[in-house]
Amino acid sequence: MSRTKCLVVGASGYTGAELLRLLLRHPGVELVGVTSRQYAGSALTEVFPKYRGVGNADDLAFIEPEAAAMTKTGAEFAFLALPHGVASEFARPLVDAGIRVIDLSADFRLNDAAVYEEFYGSAHPDEALMTEAVYGLPEVYADEIKAARLVASPGCYPTSILLPLLPLLRTKAVDPATIHVASMSGVSGAGKKADPSLLFVECNESVRPYSVPKHRHLSEIEQELSAAAGEKVAISFTPHLVPINAGICSTIYVATEKSGAEIGNLLESAYANAPFVRLLGENGCPDTKNVVGSNFIDIGWAEDERTARAVLLSAEDNLGKGAGSQAIQSFNLMAGLDETTGIL
Amino acid sequence: MSRTKCLVVGASGYTGAELLRLLLRHPGVELVGVTSRQYAGSALTEVFPKYRGVGNADDLAFIEPEAAAMTKTGAEFAFLALPHGVASEFARPLVDAGIRVIDLSADFRLNDAAVYEEFYGSAHPDEALMTEAVYGLPEVYADEIKAARLVASPGCYPTSILLPLLPLLRTKAVDPATIHVASMSGVSGAGKKADPSLLFVECNESVRPYSVPKHRHLSEIEQELSAAAGEKVAISFTPHLVPINAGICSTIYVATEKSGAEIGNLLESAYANAPFVRLLGENGCPDTKNVVGSNFIDIGWAEDERTARAVLLSAEDNLGKGAGSQAIQSFNLMAGLDETTGIL
Amino acid sequence: MSRTKCLVVGASGYTGAELLRLLLRHPGVELVGVTSRQYAGSALTEVFPKYRGVGNADDLAFIEPEAAAMTKTGAEFAFLALPHGVASEFARPLVDAGIRVIDLSADFRLNDAAVYEEFYGSAHPDEALMTEAVYGLPEVYADEIKAARLVASPGCYPTSILLPLLPLLRTKAVDPATIHVASMSGVSGAGKKADPSLLFVECNESVRPYSVPKHRHLSEIEQELSAAAGEKVAISFTPHLVPINAGICSTIYVATEKSGAEIGNLLESAYANAPFVRLLGENGCPDTKNVVGSNFIDIGWAEDERTARAVLLSAEDNLGKGAGSQAIQSFNLMAGLDETTGIL
Amino acid sequence: MSRTKCLVVGASGYTGAELLRLLLRHPGVELVGVTSRQYAGSALTEVFPKYRGVGNADDLAFIEPEAAAMTKTGAEFAFLALPHGVASEFARPLVDAGIRVIDLSADFRLNDAAVYEEFYGSAHPDEALMTEAVYGLPEVYADEIKAARLVASPGCYPTSILLPLLPLLRTKAVDPATIHVASMSGVSGAGKKADPSLLFVECNESVRPYSVPKHRHLSEIEQELSAAAGEKVAISFTPHLVPINAGICSTIYVATEKSGAEIGNLLESAYANAPFVRLLGENGCPDTKNVVGSNFIDIGWAEDERTARAVLLSAEDNLGKGAGSQAIQSFNLMAGLDETTGIL
Repeated sequence: MSRTKCLVVGASGYTGAELLRLLLRHPGVELVGVTSRQYAGSALTEVFPKYRGVGNADDLAFIEPEAAAMTKTGAEFAFLALPHGVASEFARPLVDAGIRVIDLSADFRLNDAAVYEEFYGSAHPDEALMTEAVYGLPEVYADEIKAARLVASPGCYPTSILLPLLPLLRTKAVDPATIHVASMSGVSGAGKKADPSLLFVECNESVRPYSVPKHRHLSEIEQELSAAAGEKVAISFTPHLVPINAGICSTIYVATEKSGAEIGNLLESAYANAPFVRLLGENGCPDTKNVVGSNFIDIGWAEDERTARAVLLSAEDNLGKGAGSQAIQSFNLMAGLDETTGIL
Repeated sequence: MSRTKCLVVGASGYTGAELLRLLLRHPGVELVGVTSRQYAGSALTEVFPKYRGVGNADDLAFIEPEAAAMTKTGAEFAFLALPHGVASEFARPLVDAGIRVIDLSADFRLNDAAVYEEFYGSAHPDEALMTEAVYGLPEVYADEIKAARLVASPGCYPTSILLPLLPLLRTKAVDPATIHVASMSGVSGAGKKADPSLLFVECNESVRPYSVPKHRHLSEIEQELSAAAGEKVAISFTPHLVPINAGICSTIYVATEKSGAEIGNLLESAYANAPFVRLLGENGCPDTKNVVGSNFIDIGWAEDERTARAVLLSAEDNLGKGAGSQAIQSFNLMAGLDETTGIL
Repeated sequence: MSRTKCLVVGASGYTGAELLRLLLRHPGVELVGVTSRQYAGSALTEVFPKYRGVGNADDLAFIEPEAAAMTKTGAEFAFLALPHGVASEFARPLVDAGIRVIDLSADFRLNDAAVYEEFYGSAHPDEALMTEAVYGLPEVYADEIKAARLVASPGCYPTSILLPLLPLLRTKAVDPATIHVASMSGVSGAGKKADPSLLFVECNESVRPYSVPKHRHLSEIEQELSAAAGEKVAISFTPHLVPINAGICSTIYVATEKSGAEIGNLLESAYANAPFVRLLGENGCPDTKNVVGSNFIDIGWAEDERTARAVLLSAEDNLGKGAGSQAIQSFNLMAGLDETTGIL
Repeated sequence: MSRTKCLVVGASGYTGAELLRLLLRHPGVELVGVTSRQYAGSALTEVFPKYRGVGNADDLAFIEPEAAAMTKTGAEFAFLALPHGVASEFARPLVDAGIRVIDLSADFRLNDAAVYEEFYGSAHPDEALMTEAVYGLPEVYADEIKAARLVASPGCYPTSILLPLLPLLRTKAVDPATIHVASMSGVSGAGKKADPSLLFVECNESVRPYSVPKHRHLSEIEQELSAAAGEKVAISFTPHLVPINAGICSTIYVATEKSGAEIGNLLESAYANAPFVRLLGENGCPDTKNVVGSNFIDIGWAEDERTARAVLLSAEDNLGKGAGSQAIQSFNLMAGLDETTGIL
């Protein structure tokens, strides 16, 4: 397999680390550069001792995320694993230099500047690029992704909520005005920040909701739900922090007249050719431990005739299908590789 | 303080252990007996080395849960920490012997024999006692508890769901047909069973829903919600297992026209004199780590004007306010003690 | 019981929090003040929501750790829960103001200025007070503690290593030149510092040694071992960080000609009247979960005739017998109370 | 790459699961069978939902571990992931049928029948095969492994202790009479047994030594240490259970006159061509989280001039280098593949 030259921008956080884990072993990738403001000049394996001896990790050192230096790596693709608000500065020069970009931040996921400003508190710095960017959910936008210059890879909560719901909204099988979601995320989802609330002792033996009632990810969730439903959708969503390193579990209620079997048929039909969506059957319950470290999302569902509602249950790795491996799934499509290369 | 003679029946599980922890130090209690089929004849501290040197633990040995042996202890009160279905056999002889009983199982919590049979799969063995039993939620039934011969102490999920909702249902502030709940429980809630799915490796780094769509605790939750609402209420409820030893977090959605401030007023008014209900204010988020080891339940809430719903958030210790210390709170009332004795 | 006025200086860390948990409920204590540079002006319960409704917590606010403000509280005793190097500045003015001080830092634990400088890298700022201070291990220095103006409460690792070894060294039952120790500590032992290496994701699913080969606590450990042995003792000691919130486990090897039974006799004889030392018997293995939240230290031992060595095994709560409750044990002695008041 | 037909006998435990994870993706392996008494007849993915969609997992079902059925799979190699004492019954028929066997139990690791009986309590059922078996530590016995019919893959504790010590014993750099070891293992090391002491609540927030003073693995550890030292070696060894899923950390003391630099030279010289041994340098501390999921063992060391001892520190995945991936490393050698195939 020929190897495509790839660069990881902002490689020192948890998402960056997961990208490195996968790209260092990807048979279609040559990792030609890693950037980090904080660690520029350090060997990659000094920051990540766990990658000593893996692929070409021992030959790489962090460089500054400067346009010239990044272009000089010869990269054909760049993965941006940067904090929200930072990625939007980096995408433009890379794209202009002919490097195709897969951005893992929220910066380019919305297609409505007003919604961006409502949820992120300031105007988007590069509306043209935001509008051009393709939402990188391969189960929905594979064709657009293949051709894209800039892919905005979805967030972890959105992926876990969208994949179960989209086929049901598209087919009008559920009432879009009745969606209620509770999601539970591992702590890596909060990033590698020296924030006291993320210390081991503060998270261990702790479960807590946060960001009620209006988490920022609602904006992209509702954008995609609305597109599928063909009408404006607003949902209830509460994220919770649970003491696991990685993994997201979403529990979704929606009113429906469909039976469990009918819901199953709709999901199976939608994902018959989706290698990373695993349907667990009616009353099947997902478990984050079955998906962590992988690009799979597991989906179960149940009919509750007492309330005329369905409950949809999903589990994925917030750093995998919710971030790193999903971005590589898009990369595979963009690079003309089999969708599953290096991530199965 | 004079000491009331107490017996713990079925003291070797997690709920029993928490009762022992509290009763061994309770200034108004003399622990006169502990029973366990499995450990009869063993010293209490052999089974629970952690209680060596605490209170009179070194003087106690497990006895068989036989009526004669239990009566012989001179107990005035008995706490039943037995599996569901077993408690109903033990309550009758104790009550007949004049021993007041606080049962921590689900056996006596319902007041409708048909609902019992629907959810538990067989007829109740002692309907008369089931009907007599008082639902032991002190914030609601304090007067009835004081006079009761048999108190059915509520389950952990029900407590975490009822206390936030009841004041809002009683005042018609919310729409009872729109309740959606997701709860997350620590693993001790599943009991001390040698079940492979409860092994450390199976639970650690795992989050998973279970018992969808119709968990048994729905029966008592809906019974009490209906009583407060003055109409039949059916809700959506999904429990999740999360890797913490103890603690329950419940996230509850309900449609309402009330503002966050109005909801706060209703809760404050309901719990002004409830020493164990701590209201966190609008947009306040509870955290299980703040309540574990205590009898507190922490409650936050938020208004979501986008969906015309409120979200109610609660956290409690599933072994505390959800089991052991709540039972002692009832005991305190029954014994004429201050409600907080030994559990604050 | 009359209540002694107490002050906690530096109350916002993990040791401070544990002191508060105990002092707020201690029947012989009136908590009259809490200090914190960072949180001065904030209500205690704003920083520690878990103490809402407990004792007089709702009435307290953090004050600056200024001499005038601290004296004004009327405190008769002050607990210092400050970082090492900071406590030594605070002790002098408090002692001079007639306030008896229990310092939980390492600042006053040594009695040799040269050793202090060797291990801490600079001269001690107040040698006179360092020399005066009593090493606060109540099982060894109860009489001195009762009369002390300043008690230097031992560290968590030292307590877990000294209590098993001291009786054996004093009686020449073991060879002091052959001591090898491996200790495992919960993460709270590292303090509440926003250090990336202490983040949940960095500590969870991780076990790691650190500070090899010369941890600072060696200085006080060897000081006390030498005093007991009557000769200069140097030991091997490796601390490990393990993913638990609290708890220390120490495994100690030492050459001996004594049998397991003889070692048992020596330990039993030494600790016959020590309410917080629990001897587990020959081949008994301690478990941190049996001691966390308490002031107990559990000690087991085994004879290994194959190597003519004994292994001593101990477990304690690093925040309890290794910090907060041990300091209160000293307080109880100083205040003329029963040693176990408020901590059993 | 041509694919060698492999069978996993006893595939339902933790070691079996790790073997499956790796073999399903191994480019030189065709997994032709999995056995399990308990699950015979069930689809592999019913027992391990996490392997749905991976390799040929969806095509496999568990078969009974009967000789005829196993031979019929056409397997050229069999991995035995069976409990100790069971493997010895299965190896003979497989070997006789011309299937090369890699046994992950302790059954064939010793080469002295008397030692086996001392540590395991009964005579070995197949001494001839025990004597023939090669100890599967590829860093030591690569040549013998390549030619073996039966490889006895080392245990997790032994691997973590032997690899740091062997080069130092072989060169007489350390005193073999002075070895003291404390090891900490993740809970998967205890196997997937429905034993109450392995429940989540019993292991979480718990650290505890066990099997003092004479763990069974001592037999193979001392056999290999003695072989390297050229004299009989007895050591002190205490295993500890720590709340992580996977990982072993070993801390080893040994008297030496060598400096840290000299120890480093000896280790570097021994492992210059060992792709899975990563030397961390003097005073380098390993961390289980850097090796879990891999076949690496990380080794650090420090000189303690105060005691004339060295401390050696190692970390590995107990299911990886301590079990599954190490067995595959042997397989790679036996099958004539690059040692790292499928496990890097």
